Amino acid sequence: MKKYAQNLTEKIISEHLVRGRMETGTEIFLKVDSTLVHDMSGTLAYIGFEAMGIDKIQVPAAVTFQDHNLVAMDHRSLDDHRFVASAARRYGSILSKAGNGICHSVYYSRIGRPGTVLAGADSHSATAGALGMLGVGLGGLDVSAIMGGEPMELKMPAVIGVEVKGRLKPGVSAKDAALWLLKQLSVKGGVGKVLEYFGEGVENLSVPQRATIANMGAEMGATSSVFPADEAVRRFLKAQGREEDYLELAADPGAVYRLRLTLDLSRIVPSVAVPPMPDQVKSVREAGPVKVDQVYIGSCTNGSYYDLARAARVLEGRRVHPDVNLLVSPSNRQVYQMLLEDGSIGQFIRAGARIMECGCGPCIGLGQAPPTGGVSVRTSNRNYRGRCGTADASVYLTGPETAAATAVLGYLAEPGDVMEDLTELERVAEPEKYPVDDSLLFCYGQKTEQTELIKGPNIREMPVKGPLDANIGARVVLKAGDNITTDDIIPPGPEVLTLRPNIPALSRYLFQKIDPGFADRAEEYGCSVIVAGENYGQGSSREHAAIGPMYLGVKAVLAKSISRIHRSNLINYGIVPVLFAHPADYEAISAGDELMMEDAPGQLLGGDGTVRLRNLTTGRDIPGTVSFTDKELELLLAGGLLPYIHNRHNGGVKP
Amino acid sequence: MKKYAQNLTEKIISEHLVRGRMETGTEIFLKVDSTLVHDMSGTLAYIGFEAMGIDKIQVPAAVTFQDHNLVAMDHRSLDDHRFVASAARRYGSILSKAGNGICHSVYYSRIGRPGTVLAGADSHSATAGALGMLGVGLGGLDVSAIMGGEPMELKMPAVIGVEVKGRLKPGVSAKDAALWLLKQLSVKGGVGKVLEYFGEGVENLSVPQRATIANMGAEMGATSSVFPADEAVRRFLKAQGREEDYLELAADPGAVYRLRLTLDLSRIVPSVAVPPMPDQVKSVREAGPVKVDQVYIGSCTNGSYYDLARAARVLEGRRVHPDVNLLVSPSNRQVYQMLLEDGSIGQFIRAGARIMECGCGPCIGLGQAPPTGGVSVRTSNRNYRGRCGTADASVYLTGPETAAATAVLGYLAEPGDVMEDLTELERVAEPEKYPVDDSLLFCYGQKTEQTELIKGPNIREMPVKGPLDANIGARVVLKAGDNITTDDIIPPGPEVLTLRPNIPALSRYLFQKIDPGFADRAEEYGCSVIVAGENYGQGSSREHAAIGPMYLGVKAVLAKSISRIHRSNLINYGIVPVLFAHPADYEAISAGDELMMEDAPGQLLGGDGTVRLRNLTTGRDIPGTVSFTDKELELLLAGGLLPYIHNRHNGGVKP
Repeated sequence: MKKYAQNLTEKIISEHLVRGRMETGTEIFLKVDSTLVHDMSGTLAYIGFEAMGIDKIQVPAAVTFQDHNLVAMDHRSLDDHRFVASAARRYGSILSKAGNGICHSVYYSRIGRPGTVLAGADSHSATAGALGMLGVGLGGLDVSAIMGGEPMELKMPAVIGVEVKGRLKPGVSAKDAALWLLKQLSVKGGVGKVLEYFGEGVENLSVPQRATIANMGAEMGATSSVFPADEAVRRFLKAQGREEDYLELAADPGAVYRLRLTLDLSRIVPSVAVPPMPDQVKSVREAGPVKVDQVYIGSCTNGSYYDLARAARVLEGRRVHPDVNLLVSPSNRQVYQMLLEDGSIGQFIRAGARIMECGCGPCIGLGQAPPTGGVSVRTSNRNYRGRCGTADASVYLTGPETAAATAVLGYLAEPGDVMEDLTELERVAEPEKYPVDDSLLFCYGQKTEQTELIKGPNIREMPVKGPLDANIGARVVLKAGDNITTDDIIPPGPEVLTLRPNIPALSRYLFQKIDPGFADRAEEYGCSVIVAGENYGQGSSREHAAIGPMYLGVKAVLAKSISRIHRSNLINYGIVPVLFAHPADYEAISAGDELMMEDAPGQLLGGDGTVRLRNLTTGRDIPGTVSFTDKELELLLAGGLLPYIHNRHNGGVKP
Repeated sequence: MKKYAQNLTEKIISEHLVRGRMETGTEIFLKVDSTLVHDMSGTLAYIGFEAMGIDKIQVPAAVTFQDHNLVAMDHRSLDDHRFVASAARRYGSILSKAGNGICHSVYYSRIGRPGTVLAGADSHSATAGALGMLGVGLGGLDVSAIMGGEPMELKMPAVIGVEVKGRLKPGVSAKDAALWLLKQLSVKGGVGKVLEYFGEGVENLSVPQRATIANMGAEMGATSSVFPADEAVRRFLKAQGREEDYLELAADPGAVYRLRLTLDLSRIVPSVAVPPMPDQVKSVREAGPVKVDQVYIGSCTNGSYYDLARAARVLEGRRVHPDVNLLVSPSNRQVYQMLLEDGSIGQFIRAGARIMECGCGPCIGLGQAPPTGGVSVRTSNRNYRGRCGTADASVYLTGPETAAATAVLGYLAEPGDVMEDLTELERVAEPEKYPVDDSLLFCYGQKTEQTELIKGPNIREMPVKGPLDANIGARVVLKAGDNITTDDIIPPGPEVLTLRPNIPALSRYLFQKIDPGFADRAEEYGCSVIVAGENYGQGSSREHAAIGPMYLGVKAVLAKSISRIHRSNLINYGIVPVLFAHPADYEAISAGDELMMEDAPGQLLGGDGTVRLRNLTTGRDIPGTVSFTDKELELLLAGGLLPYIHNRHNGGVKP
C-alpha cells in the first residue's frame, strides 16, 4: 500500500481509512477504536444513541466520564451523571465515576494505546496524542453516530511537522513550550491541520509533558496533535502497569510535512498568555508584575503528578500571599494518591492552598469565578473573556511552576523569583511505577445490561424526523437578514447550555433575541421554512442551532449563502439547505408566505443542481440551487443522521 | 451578688450582665467578648457597621470567616469574600481566610475560651458551648450593633439541665445522642431555653463530641447549649497549645434547672433523622435499608478529626458502593492535616470517596445537590425539604460512622453491618497534640488599617433613615390580609439571598408574589404605610422583611396584630408598628388612601398607649394602640438601630 515515506499521522490514518483518499481537504472516513463522552457532552450523545435504536455500542472501547460538572448546584448535574451512567451500563461503555478524574487525563493514563483512533465529544480529545495516537474532538451527535458504528468523517488534515530540539531549562515547563507554539501559530493556525512532533528533543519530554502540549493544540484550532510512540511512551505505559499496550511508532525516515516548525526547548522561557486569548503570549518578564487575586493549578492541561509535584516544590517552605487564593486540583485520583504519598498535598496545605477535588470545575467556569475585575492565573487552556464566570475578570495562562511562584509573591512571577536554585525542581521525576487502582472504572464495555436509561426531568428523548416529505409545503416562519450567527439562532451561556439534553425546552430559546415570537409561530405553522440572506449560520459550530429548528418543524433553509459547518448540521438533522439561484428573489418573499417544493426527493435526486420552489402566496416561482454528496443525499432522504443510522440497523423500519 | 446555687448558664450570664434582671423571659443585656460573622452573614453585618460611622470594632475579639460560599459560580461570592476581608482589616477583626475551615469548628478549636460570650451571625454559634461558654446566634445587623459596642439583647432563657450518664457504645456517635435529644425535645422544644449539660457522663465526651451535641441544639430551637469547662476541655485546649485559655467552670452544687432531662449515653443506638425534619428520629434499624445515592461526611456538626478518622476506619479495606457518591469534607485545615498524617485521606481515596475542600458547601445547598428524587445521607444538621438544592430529594441525618457504613453498602446501615469488631473504632482517640498553624488567621483585630472597603457591584451601602418624622403623612401602599409571612414579604431562595448586601436590588422583590406592583408604587408614593390584618410578619425572622420596606419609604405598619419578631425588626429599622384600636376600622381603609399621624414623636412619647391617625381620604379618624419599651422608643425616635448607634458614637450628628 505505502508508496512513499509517511509521517505518523498518515500512518495512523491509512491504518484506519475506510473510505476516501488521503488528499488534504478531501473527505475521509476512519474506523474508530475508542470514543469518549462525559457528563456534559454525553447527555446529547446518549439521547442521540437511543434514537438510533441500536442495542450495543459498536466501537471496541467506549468510555463515559463523570468529570465536568462536579459542583451540582441543582438536580440537573447529578441527573446528567445518573443518565450517562445508566447509558454506559445499558449500551456497554466503560464508566469512569465521579472522583476518578478528568477524562483526558484518565484516558491517556489508563486507556489510550499507541496507533489507535479516539473520537471524543470534547475539544481537548487530542491530549491522547501524547501516546502516539490520533484523538479528535467532535460534537456529541457525531460521537453518537460513531458509537452506532459509523466511521469518523474528517477532512484529510494537512500535517505540520514540529521538530523538537534541545531540553527545557529548569523552571521552564511544557506549558511554556505550548504557549510558544500558540504565539507562532495563533488560535487559527492549526485549523484543518494535525501538529505532529518529531526530532531528537522529543525524548526529553515525558508523556505528561507531551499531553500538555498535545492538549493545547486545540487552542490553535488543530484537528489533532500527535507525538511518536517511543521509549518514553513505553516507560510510561510500563509504569502504568500496561507495557503490553505499547507499540513503537514514528514517522518514516524522510517523511514529508506540509509545513515544518522548529521548537527549540532550550530557548523557551516562563511565559504567559494574557487575556483574552490563549495566543496573546508574552514572557513573564514582558507581562510584568501583574497583581493577582487567584491562582488555579490543575485541569486536563496541567494537572499531572509531574505538574503538581513541581508546583509543590516551588511552595516548599513558602506561603501563599495573603491576598491570593491558591486552588490546587489534581487531574485524577492516581495523581492525588501520588501527591499524598510524596507529601505534596501536605506541602500545599502548609503553604495555605485549598485542595479541590479532581475534576474540570474552574476551567469551564463551574465554580471559582474570580471577584469583579479580578485577576486569575491559571494552568488551564483557555482565557476567553467571561469563561471563568466573571465577565470583567482577567485570566492569565501559565505553567504550574510559574503559577506557584505567582501565588507566593502575589503578582505574576517566574519560579526563579522565589527559588534560588531551580535545579531543585528537577528532583521531581516521572515515577517508575504509578499506583494503579481502576476501581472507579466500571467496565460495562464487556457486557451490556438490561438496565433502563434513567432520565431526570431535564433529559428528554431526542426528537427524530421521518423521511423527507414528498412535497414540502411550508410557511416562511422567519425572514432573516445577512450574517445570522449560531449565537443568534440559539443563545450561548449556561442557562441554555443546561438544556442541551432537553430539546423541547431548548427550542423555546430559538432566535430569542432577534424574533421572540419565533418558537410560537413555528409551532403554529407546523411545517415551516427559514429564509435568510448571506452567510446564514456563521460562528460557533453548535449543532443545537439545527436540532432546535428541526424539532419545531423547519423543513428547509432558503438563503443567499449558508456557512459550511451549519449547512452540514442542517443536513444531519434533515433540514434541506437551498440557495437562491437569483439572490434578488430574496426580496420576493415575505414572512408568512407559503412555499411549496413539489416532489422534493425527485428534485434533489435529479442531479442537475437545481430545484424549483413556488411561492403559493404570490404565485411566483423561485428557482434554487443545491449541491449534495451521495452521503448527504442519503441523509436528507432518511430525515437526517439519526434515522439514517436507525434504518441501517433496523431494516429500514423508521424510529 | 450570688444568693443561690447557680447553674453554669446563670453564672456566665451574671458575669456578663449589663442591664436587666435574670428572670426567665425578661429582657437582659450582656457584655459580649467575641463576635463571629462570615462571608454570607458578614456582608450585611459590615454594611450595617459602616452605616454606624464607627472607626473600630468595640468587642475584644471579632472574627470574620470566609467559609460559606466557596463554590463561587459568579463574581458575587468572591466579591463578598473580598468585602468582608477589607472590612476585617479596616475595622479590626481577625480574618479566617478561605481554606482555613468552617467558622464554628475553627472558632472552638482556635479562638473560644471558657466563660466567655460569643455573639455569632450564624444559627449554629452555640457550637462553642462545648468549651463551657455561651454562644448565641443572631441576625447580621444585631451583630453589627454588638461590634459597634452595644450589649447583646436577649430574653433571659429558661435553663434545661441535661444530666449525662454512662458512655457511648462502640459504633455509636455523639450525633446519635444529639438525635436522641431532638426526638425528645422536637424542633421547638428548645425555644427560649439553654440546654446545659452536667453529670458524670459528660467526662466521657470529648470536646469535638460535645461540639456536635451543642451544634444540634440549634435544631431544637435552643438559644444556646452549654457544657462545663472540665478536664476534657483542659486537655483539648492543651492539645491545641493554649492551655492558658483554660478556666474550670461548672454549675454550683445544687444548682436548679427549670426542667431536667437524663441522657443515658449507654442506651443510645445508631440513629437517623428521616426527612424532612431533624426531629423525625428513628433508629437505623427502624428506618430500614433505604437505598442511597449520595453520602456526605463533614460540616460544622461532624467534620472533626475524630469524626472523619472514625469514618475512615469504617471504610478500611472496603469500597464505596458503585451507586453511591461519598463526599468527605474536613471541617478545617487542622483536621485535614491530621487526616493526611494518619493516612485517613489516603484511606478515603482508596475506598473511592471524593475529598471536598474545607467549607460549608453541601450543608447549605451550595453544591452537591442530589439527583431528582435522590436520597442523600448526611452528617450535617438540617434535612429540610429543598435545603440540599433538589426540591424532591430526601436527606437523612446520621453520625459519620453510620454514614460510612451506608456508603459501603449502598443502603442505610449501621457500622455493625460492615464491621465485625466495632471496638476497632475506639482506636481513634483524641490527639494529645493538634498540629497548630494559624497562618490563615490574620489578626487584624490588633490594629485597624486605613484600607478602603472593597465593594463589588452587588454590595451597596446600607440605607439609613433620619429621625422619626414630626408628622407622618403617608399613603396606603398595600392593604394586606391576615397571616402575611415574611416569605410573602420577601421571598426565600438563593436568587434573592445573594442580594442581601444589595438592599436597592433586593427591595424590588418585596411582596413579589402577592402584589407585583408594590415596589413601583412605594417608590411613587415616597412615604407610605402598610395596612394588614392579623399576625402580620409571621414565620422566619428574616430582617430584610423590614429593611426592604424601610428602604422604599414605608413609615408605619398598621395591623390587627403583628408577629413579635417582625415587630422588633420593624422597630430596628425605624418603622412604627401600630395596632388598630378597633379591628373593624381595618375595613374603613383602602389601598391608596392618605393617612396622617400628626406629631408622631409626641404621640409615641405620650405614654398612654394610644395614637390617633386620620384617613385624609375619607376624613375618618382611626385610633391605634402602641406599646413600647424605653429602648424601643429611643430606637424609633432615632430612626432605627443604625442611626441610634451612629448618634451615640458621633455626638448626635446624623449619618
